[in-house]
Amino acid sequence: MSQQPVAIRWENEELILLDQTQLPLTTVFEKQESVEQVWDSIKKLKVRGAPAIGVAGAYGLVISIQNQQKEPVETVLSLLTKNADYLNGSRPTAVNLSWALNRMLDKAKSQEWATTQELYSALVKEAELIHEEDRYLCQKIGEFGKTLIQNDMGVLTHCNAGALATGGIGTALATMYLAHEAGVKFRVYADETRPLLQGSRLTAWELQQAGIDVTLICDNMAAQMMSQGLIDVVVVGTDRVVANGDVANKIGTLGVAILAKHFNIPFYVACPSSTIDLSIPTGTDIPIEERGADEVTSFGQRRTAPPDIAVRAPAFDVTPHHLVKGLITEKGIVEAPYEENLKKLFT
Amino acid sequence: MSQQPVAIRWENEELILLDQTQLPLTTVFEKQESVEQVWDSIKKLKVRGAPAIGVAGAYGLVISIQNQQKEPVETVLSLLTKNADYLNGSRPTAVNLSWALNRMLDKAKSQEWATTQELYSALVKEAELIHEEDRYLCQKIGEFGKTLIQNDMGVLTHCNAGALATGGIGTALATMYLAHEAGVKFRVYADETRPLLQGSRLTAWELQQAGIDVTLICDNMAAQMMSQGLIDVVVVGTDRVVANGDVANKIGTLGVAILAKHFNIPFYVACPSSTIDLSIPTGTDIPIEERGADEVTSFGQRRTAPPDIAVRAPAFDVTPHHLVKGLITEKGIVEAPYEENLKKLFT
Repeated sequence: MSQQPVAIRWENEELILLDQTQLPLTTVFEKQESVEQVWDSIKKLKVRGAPAIGVAGAYGLVISIQNQQKEPVETVLSLLTKNADYLNGSRPTAVNLSWALNRMLDKAKSQEWATTQELYSALVKEAELIHEEDRYLCQKIGEFGKTLIQNDMGVLTHCNAGALATGGIGTALATMYLAHEAGVKFRVYADETRPLLQGSRLTAWELQQAGIDVTLICDNMAAQMMSQGLIDVVVVGTDRVVANGDVANKIGTLGVAILAKHFNIPFYVACPSSTIDLSIPTGTDIPIEERGADEVTSFGQRRTAPPDIAVRAPAFDVTPHHLVKGLITEKGIVEAPYEENLKKLFT
Repeated sequence: MSQQPVAIRWENEELILLDQTQLPLTTVFEKQESVEQVWDSIKKLKVRGAPAIGVAGAYGLVISIQNQQKEPVETVLSLLTKNADYLNGSRPTAVNLSWALNRMLDKAKSQEWATTQELYSALVKEAELIHEEDRYLCQKIGEFGKTLIQNDMGVLTHCNAGALATGGIGTALATMYLAHEAGVKFRVYADETRPLLQGSRLTAWELQQAGIDVTLICDNMAAQMMSQGLIDVVVVGTDRVVANGDVANKIGTLGVAILAKHFNIPFYVACPSSTIDLSIPTGTDIPIEERGADEVTSFGQRRTAPPDIAVRAPAFDVTPHHLVKGLITEKGIVEAPYEENLKKLFT
């Protein structure tokens, strides 16, 4: 049985987050005492990964009224609106965060509450439901995806789409956890994923914790591994899939997809169907966030590039759908033609 | 006029090396006082790059007998043999080092010397000749290669095949220096080149010093730059080209070549003809050095991967000849069919 790390715990009405900024060398769980602390944890990437941020935000809203249960319902409702807005500002671009906070607010406004305690209990249940649903989505993605991983295979992944990025066992990594649980013997190659090294710090760590055979490589070694016949399948996560099947994901994903195509290796993308955004027609319409130069010119406290050097630092790239063999969702694996099959997924 | 940094200076019978381990933040030139110091400078990568190591080794042998000019010729000849062997052990895999040391020894044994001073003077001249020849090769490579770089082009390079790696203006970077000198306006994209960041620390620095428009990217951003139409030509160096035209170079080169092919961008390799090894038939026969795991699991002094993680760390990869548009040599640009045209190059 695999043992995945748990990024978010809700125990005895306490929210406990694994501080991912200290991984992989130190494993620290921090009890969240206030909404300000939750905001800070999201802002500073102590909790990261779009689904995980959504779950943490929902619990954060609960925390924000935990000590207000003697106040009138009306006061607490107005506090909730204010705090949801505050939490949403911690990382304004993460869709799952605003989605989860809005769902919590909808719940709060869904009926008349006799007491504030009643409202509070309903919100605890709603946050637990969001968390539970995320666990379920991960599990289903893993069940569909695990069939792609067979004995003696080499599996390449990029960045971290694992337990640490979700409320459950991850998306891309869920396929590996469940294949491992089913007794399949395989080896994962984890791209370190510059500049922030989520592959090295997070993916390598969580797979190692779970007892999965994982080998760390620099991003620029993937081609060599493929040319040696060591990679049989690629599975990555995604931040957004659009109507034609184009996939936005962590910078470097496009390169991996092109290499996979060159070596005839199937390239899969794992995500819940909520990540599929049919309102955007093609990948060229997805705005690509440019990060600060410091992430490329330094590491930790140490500068590694000359002063005043020009830098490009796109955080994401777009992989065109023709390079994608399939999308592993909680409803099954979707293949081309994507425009048609993605529409079907939602009907 | 471009101003390239000079890695190796021979002035007033003194050998002065730029300490490349301190780049890009500190520019320190170190006078080499003894053969032991030269050995250490090569070992610790203060001077690196196959051609540069050869030149430094030749001067190192001169240094090793500088204070022995009152000894008999026979004594000094035997000292030279011993010291050449010693210097060669600093980096046993660098072909140019043993080549340069053997050439120095051949010179020492080429005739009867009336005095040790005469022998010493002949060796100074031979080392200067090796240095001068390397400068000439770089210049010729640059002259042939600069024609590939035209106004408004984006040029991608990987690792460091520049002035810092040679006794002259580099191989791949020579093309850029001479295009710049000719007034061509272009932009270079420098892959940072994990794990040792030669692109970030050395290439970005030396191009910046020379006033060339250079932008630093992480290795995994190259595909995104190409997909945006920012790259028009790729020029890299090489450690060895074999008879069929396959190219061994710094890890990550293969990936860049595949991406270039995908985006229909010409991929060129610059090298002196001495790097072409016709005794090896294909790239699969080139042994690939595996480096220590620490280079991948740490960044600077800071560990970034979990303890006991498995790592692959090939230092080189092999790019098959069908991905190579041309080899830029001091004798001209060689294109396919390589087997035939490389043979012609040597006749």
